[in-house]
Amino acid sequence: MDNNAAGQILLHQTSSRKRLDHKQDTICILGTGDFGRSLGIRLLKSGYPVVFGSRDPKNSVLLPSGAQVFSQAEALKTSKLIFLAVHRENYDFLLALSDLLDGKVLVDVSNNLRMNQYPESNAQYLSQLVPRANVVKGFNTVSAWALQSGSLDASSQVFVCGDDNKSKQLVMDVARSIGLTPLDQGYLLAAEELESYPLQLFPMWRLPFIITAGLTVFFFLYHVVLRIIYSYVNKNVDQTYQIMISIPNHVFPSVCLILLGLVYLPGVIAAFLQLHRGTKYKRFPNWLDKWMLCRKQLGLVSFAYGFLHVFYSLVKPLRYSFYWRSAQYAASVMKSNATSEMEMKWVWRSDLFYAFGILGFFVFCLLGVTSLPSVSNAMNWREFRFVQSKLGHVTLLLCTAHTAVLGWNKFLKPTVYKWGLPPGYLLSMVIPCIVLVLKLILITPCVDRMVTRIRQGWERKGRDLGKVNI
Amino acid sequence: MDNNAAGQILLHQTSSRKRLDHKQDTICILGTGDFGRSLGIRLLKSGYPVVFGSRDPKNSVLLPSGAQVFSQAEALKTSKLIFLAVHRENYDFLLALSDLLDGKVLVDVSNNLRMNQYPESNAQYLSQLVPRANVVKGFNTVSAWALQSGSLDASSQVFVCGDDNKSKQLVMDVARSIGLTPLDQGYLLAAEELESYPLQLFPMWRLPFIITAGLTVFFFLYHVVLRIIYSYVNKNVDQTYQIMISIPNHVFPSVCLILLGLVYLPGVIAAFLQLHRGTKYKRFPNWLDKWMLCRKQLGLVSFAYGFLHVFYSLVKPLRYSFYWRSAQYAASVMKSNATSEMEMKWVWRSDLFYAFGILGFFVFCLLGVTSLPSVSNAMNWREFRFVQSKLGHVTLLLCTAHTAVLGWNKFLKPTVYKWGLPPGYLLSMVIPCIVLVLKLILITPCVDRMVTRIRQGWERKGRDLGKVNI
Amino acid sequence: MDNNAAGQILLHQTSSRKRLDHKQDTICILGTGDFGRSLGIRLLKSGYPVVFGSRDPKNSVLLPSGAQVFSQAEALKTSKLIFLAVHRENYDFLLALSDLLDGKVLVDVSNNLRMNQYPESNAQYLSQLVPRANVVKGFNTVSAWALQSGSLDASSQVFVCGDDNKSKQLVMDVARSIGLTPLDQGYLLAAEELESYPLQLFPMWRLPFIITAGLTVFFFLYHVVLRIIYSYVNKNVDQTYQIMISIPNHVFPSVCLILLGLVYLPGVIAAFLQLHRGTKYKRFPNWLDKWMLCRKQLGLVSFAYGFLHVFYSLVKPLRYSFYWRSAQYAASVMKSNATSEMEMKWVWRSDLFYAFGILGFFVFCLLGVTSLPSVSNAMNWREFRFVQSKLGHVTLLLCTAHTAVLGWNKFLKPTVYKWGLPPGYLLSMVIPCIVLVLKLILITPCVDRMVTRIRQGWERKGRDLGKVNI
Repeated sequence: MDNNAAGQILLHQTSSRKRLDHKQDTICILGTGDFGRSLGIRLLKSGYPVVFGSRDPKNSVLLPSGAQVFSQAEALKTSKLIFLAVHRENYDFLLALSDLLDGKVLVDVSNNLRMNQYPESNAQYLSQLVPRANVVKGFNTVSAWALQSGSLDASSQVFVCGDDNKSKQLVMDVARSIGLTPLDQGYLLAAEELESYPLQLFPMWRLPFIITAGLTVFFFLYHVVLRIIYSYVNKNVDQTYQIMISIPNHVFPSVCLILLGLVYLPGVIAAFLQLHRGTKYKRFPNWLDKWMLCRKQLGLVSFAYGFLHVFYSLVKPLRYSFYWRSAQYAASVMKSNATSEMEMKWVWRSDLFYAFGILGFFVFCLLGVTSLPSVSNAMNWREFRFVQSKLGHVTLLLCTAHTAVLGWNKFLKPTVYKWGLPPGYLLSMVIPCIVLVLKLILITPCVDRMVTRIRQGWERKGRDLGKVNI
Repeated sequence: MDNNAAGQILLHQTSSRKRLDHKQDTICILGTGDFGRSLGIRLLKSGYPVVFGSRDPKNSVLLPSGAQVFSQAEALKTSKLIFLAVHRENYDFLLALSDLLDGKVLVDVSNNLRMNQYPESNAQYLSQLVPRANVVKGFNTVSAWALQSGSLDASSQVFVCGDDNKSKQLVMDVARSIGLTPLDQGYLLAAEELESYPLQLFPMWRLPFIITAGLTVFFFLYHVVLRIIYSYVNKNVDQTYQIMISIPNHVFPSVCLILLGLVYLPGVIAAFLQLHRGTKYKRFPNWLDKWMLCRKQLGLVSFAYGFLHVFYSLVKPLRYSFYWRSAQYAASVMKSNATSEMEMKWVWRSDLFYAFGILGFFVFCLLGVTSLPSVSNAMNWREFRFVQSKLGHVTLLLCTAHTAVLGWNKFLKPTVYKWGLPPGYLLSMVIPCIVLVLKLILITPCVDRMVTRIRQGWERKGRDLGKVNI
Repeated sequence: MDNNAAGQILLHQTSSRKRLDHKQDTICILGTGDFGRSLGIRLLKSGYPVVFGSRDPKNSVLLPSGAQVFSQAEALKTSKLIFLAVHRENYDFLLALSDLLDGKVLVDVSNNLRMNQYPESNAQYLSQLVPRANVVKGFNTVSAWALQSGSLDASSQVFVCGDDNKSKQLVMDVARSIGLTPLDQGYLLAAEELESYPLQLFPMWRLPFIITAGLTVFFFLYHVVLRIIYSYVNKNVDQTYQIMISIPNHVFPSVCLILLGLVYLPGVIAAFLQLHRGTKYKRFPNWLDKWMLCRKQLGLVSFAYGFLHVFYSLVKPLRYSFYWRSAQYAASVMKSNATSEMEMKWVWRSDLFYAFGILGFFVFCLLGVTSLPSVSNAMNWREFRFVQSKLGHVTLLLCTAHTAVLGWNKFLKPTVYKWGLPPGYLLSMVIPCIVLVLKLILITPCVDRMVTRIRQGWERKGRDLGKVNI
C-alpha cells in the first residue's frame, strides 16, 4: 500500500494551504528514531501539527515533511502532550528540562531489550525522574511499521496506563483519533506488565511445550527400544531406518491422543470437584486453573501431531519399503497359488481403522478452524461451547476408537509384550479412556442434572462458607 | 496472561494512594455472581470506583479487592449507573427500592436459559417493574470469562438498546472505556432479539444442515441398494464391508457436488429474474432470498464433504482390500504373461481424473480460506466478488469435470443401469450442469452487458412500478 | 440474521412512541439507491432521524419505514450533515441548491466504475462544484450489504478524509455511533486514493503473480522439452500423458522452492547492505523495498504450489500407471527369483526424502496459519518475527534438503544431463542455496552481533550523512 507515499504528498501541501478549520493541538515528539518518525507521520496524516525535539535540530534528516524540528526545550514549549521516543538510558536529559514538563502529559513508549533488565519499569523510573509531569505508559506494543502502514493488517490495540486519569484520557483520545484502539490498563504500576508484553515469546505455550517435549522424547525412546534395539538383540536385524518414518509415525499419534486426553481431563476433574463440593463458588486448586488455561494450546499441539501423523501415514504407499513389500507379497500369492478370497476380518478391521481415523481427523480440523480467533469471535458462547466441548469429545472418542481398532485383540497375546513392555498404543490409550469413562458418568441424566444446577448457582445445603448473595 | 493477578495487585494499592486525578463516576453493581464480579474487576482496572449491592454485605466473599460492598439500598445511592447482574426471577426486590431508582440508568445484563421462556424480554419486564428508571439492555452477549481475561481473544462487541438515548450513550461510553465495542441496536423493543443471541445455536446453519442430511441419507441408501443389496440378490455376494469406506466415498463427492451447485444456482436464477423483470428494484421472492442467505453455509458444508472425499480416497492404497487386489492383479499379469504395454486410454483417463480432482480441491481450499472472517475483511468488495464468484464457478467446473471423467462413456452402456437405476455420480451431475449451462448463457457478451446495466440501476422502459429516483 | 426485520419493526413504532429522550440530530441523505437506503436503515436503527431528499418524493418506494422523504431542497434544510449517495454524473443538480449547502457538511460516498475514469477525484470535483460546503469523502469502501446486515461479518473500517477537521470529526462520530471504525486519512487530496480502494484487484499480488507465472511457464516448457520431446526424439516414445500429472508435479515443487528462496533473499540482502553501509538510517534501493513489501504474497503463492505438490504426490499410488508399474515390478521380482533383501540405501533415501518433505510442508502450514490476519494480530512483534523468520528459514532448509535427497548423487552422472541441460530440481536449488549460505554467514556470532547493533541504532564511525540524533 502506498498510503505512505500519498501521506507524504499530502503533508507537503499542508503549509501552502490556507487552513480555516478547527485547529487540533500540537503534539511534541522527543526522539527522531524509527518509532518517533512513524508516529509523527501517522499523527500528521490525522491532522495534528507535529513538532520534533532534537539535540541537533539542524542535522535531523529523514523526518516526515510537514513536521517542524526544534531544540528539545523549544519543542517542549509548543505542546502539552509529549511523546518520549527515546531509550531509557538517555532519559537523563529530561532533568535539565524539568521545569518545562511541569503538568504536562509525558508518554513513555519505550521497550527494553529483555525482561527484568531494570528493577522498575521504564515508565515508573521516568515518573520518579520528572515527578511534576503526568507520566502515561503506552504505545509500546505498537510497531513503527504498523503505525506507518496503517492499521489494516496489524493489531491496533494500544495498552495505556497511568496514574492521572485526565492525562490518560487525553492519550487515549489521540490513539483513537489516529485509528488505534486504546485499552485502559489501570495505574502506572501496570507499566511493568505492559513493558513485558513485547518481550514475551509465547508465554502460554511454555507448559504445553514442556509436556509435549517430554512425551515425545519418552515415546521415541520407548519405540527405539522396542523396535530397533529389541530386533537387534533378539533377531540381530538392523532396523535403524525406522527412526525416519516408522517410529515418528508411532510417536505422533500416541502423543496426539494423550494430549487430546489432557485437554478434556481438567474439565471432567473440575466437574467432579464441583459435584463433591456441592458449589461452584469456590476456587479450583491452582494447578487445575493453570491446566485449564492451557487447554487451547494443548489442543493445538495435539492437532499438529495428528496432522503429521496423517501425512506420515498417507506417504506410506510411496515409500520404497512399501513398494518392495507389496511386490514380495504379490510374488508369494503367486507362488502359493492360494485361494483368491479376501479375508473379511481383515477387510473390516482395516476399513474401520481408516474410517475412524479420517473422521477423527476431520472433526479435529473443525475444532482447529473454530479456534481461529476470527472464527470463534463470530460465534456466541453457546455455539463455541458446543463446538469445543461436544465436538471435542467426539474427536477424542473417534481417535481412541481408531487406536483401539489398531490394537484389536492383539493386546491379549503375550507375544506383543516384548521384554514385558506393553506396545506404545496401549500406553497412549490410558488417559483418553479415563476421560471417556468419567465423561460417560457425567452425562448420565441424574449426574448431568446435578452439575447443571450447580453451574447455575445452586448450592448444596449445609454449606456456609463462601456463600454468595445477590 | 496474568492480567488478572496484576489487576489485583493494582487494586490493593488504590486506597493507600493519594489520588489527585480526575475522579471517574462510581458505578454500582447489584448481584455478586460470576458476571457481576467479572464486570467489577474490569471496571476497577479502568479506574472506575465500584460499589457492589448485596442482600447480605457482610457475608459477601470472593469480591474483587478495591470494590466496596454495601446493602442494596446504600449501593444504589452512590451511583447513577447501575448494572443489574441478577436472574430475572429475582427482579422483585427492586420494587422496594423503586424510589432510589428514579431517573437512574439501570442496565439489564441478564440472559435466559432457553428461547421464549417468558412472554416479554427481561429488559421490558424490568422497565415495567421500575418505570421511573431508564432501562438499558446490554452486555448480555459478553461472557464473564471475556471480561476477566481481557478482550484480546474473545469478541468485544457489546450490543446495547434502550429507549433513552442519553442513558444508552452513557452505557456505551462505559463499554468503550473498558475496551469493548458498543453497537447501538435501537429501542428497548430490540431487547428480545439481544436476549436471543446467546441462546442461538447456529441459526444460519439449520437449512443447509437439513438439505445436507437429506441428500446424505438419500445417496447412502441409494448406494446401499445398488452395491450391497443388488450384489446380494443377483450374485449372492456379501459386500456389507463397503458401508465403511467405499459407499461413504461415493456419498461424499455426490453430496459435495450437488451442494456446490446449490451455492451457485440462486445467483443465476436471480440474474435471469432480473433480466426478465428488466430492473433490480424489485424484491426477490422470499424463498430465493432465504436461499441466497445460506450460500456461505452450503459452500462450507460442501467443502467439508469434499475434504472427507479427498482423505477417503487418499487412504485407498493403505487399505487391505487394495493391497490384496493389487497382489491378485500382479499375479494375474504374471500368469497371463501378457504384453507389458500400459493402456494409454486408461493412463489419460486416470490422470485427467486426478488432475481435475486435485485442482478442484485446491481452488475449493482457496474459497474456504477466503471465507474466514479475517481474510474476507482484508479484501475489498471487488476482490471478494472475484474470489467467491469467479473462483467459485471454476471450482464447480473442475469438480464437474472430475466427475464426468469418472463416468467417461460408461453411461452409454446399459449394464451400468442396475435395476434401471442410473449410477450415483450421474444423479449428482444434474444440478451442477444446469448451473454451468445457465452461467454460460449469462457470460455471453450480449447477455452480460444487459445484466451489468440492470445491476447499475438501469431499468427497461415501460416499467413504472417501483421506480426509484435520486 | 434477521437484524433487519427486527429493525423494521422497531422503526414502525418510532412515530407512535412518545420520545422524551435526548434527541439526536437529523441526517439528510440525497439519493435513494441501494447505498442510500442501507445507510438510512442503519442510521435509523441507531436512533438518528433520517430525511431522504428525492427529485420525486411522492413516487419514492422501498424506503425504510421511519424515514421521511422530502424534495431535495426541503431535505437539505432539515440537517447540517448531508450524505450524497448519487453518481458523479448527477452532481450537477446541486448547483441549484448551492445556497442551501452553505457551511454544511457534505459527505461524498461515491465510487467510480474504473480507475482514472475522471481527471480528479469525485470528492474534489464536488468541492469545486459547491465550494461553500465542507466536503468530506468517506464510506465509499463500505458496502450497502454490510451496512444492512450489521458489521459482524464484514470489515467495519470507514476511511474518511476532508479539509475541514470539524466536519470530518462530525462524520467520524456518526460512523462510530453506528458501529463502524472511522480512520482519518488526512486532507481531501487523499480522496483519490480512497476512491481507488474499492476498484483495486489484489494490487499487492501483481508482482508475485508475474514472477510465478514466468517461472511456471519456464519450468513447464523445460520439462516438456526434457521429458516429452527428448523421449520422442531419442527413443521415439510418446510420453505426452505426462503433461497432466508428472510434469506439473515437477513444476510445482521447483517453483515453490524458488519462490520460498525469493521470500528470504531480500532479508539477507538488506542485512548485508546494512553491514556494508554500517547504518540502518539510509533508505534501501527502491527495488529492494518493493521486493520486501511483497514477501508475504510470494510466500503464500509458494505455499499454494507446495500444497498442490503434496496432493499431486499423494495421488500417485492411485494412478493407473503406478498400479500397472508395481504389478510389472512384482512380476519381475517373481521371475527373477531374486534375493528378498531390501536395498538399505534405497530405504534410507526414500524415507529421508519423504520425512524432509512432510516436515517442510508441516512448518510451511504453520507459516501459512500464522499469516492469517486474526492469528498474526494475536501475536506480539517478537513472536511474529520468531515465526516468520526462524520457522521460515527452517522451512526453506527442510524443503531444500527434501530436493537435495531427491537428487542424491545423480547430479554427478553425465547421463542425467539430457542434451547438456541440468535436471529441473538442480535449477530450483540455486536461489535457496544462496539464501541458506548467506544466512549461515549472518548467524555466525560475530556478524550477528554487528547486525544486531546496527539494527538497534548504532552507526559505524566516520559516517556523518543521515546522522540521527535524539
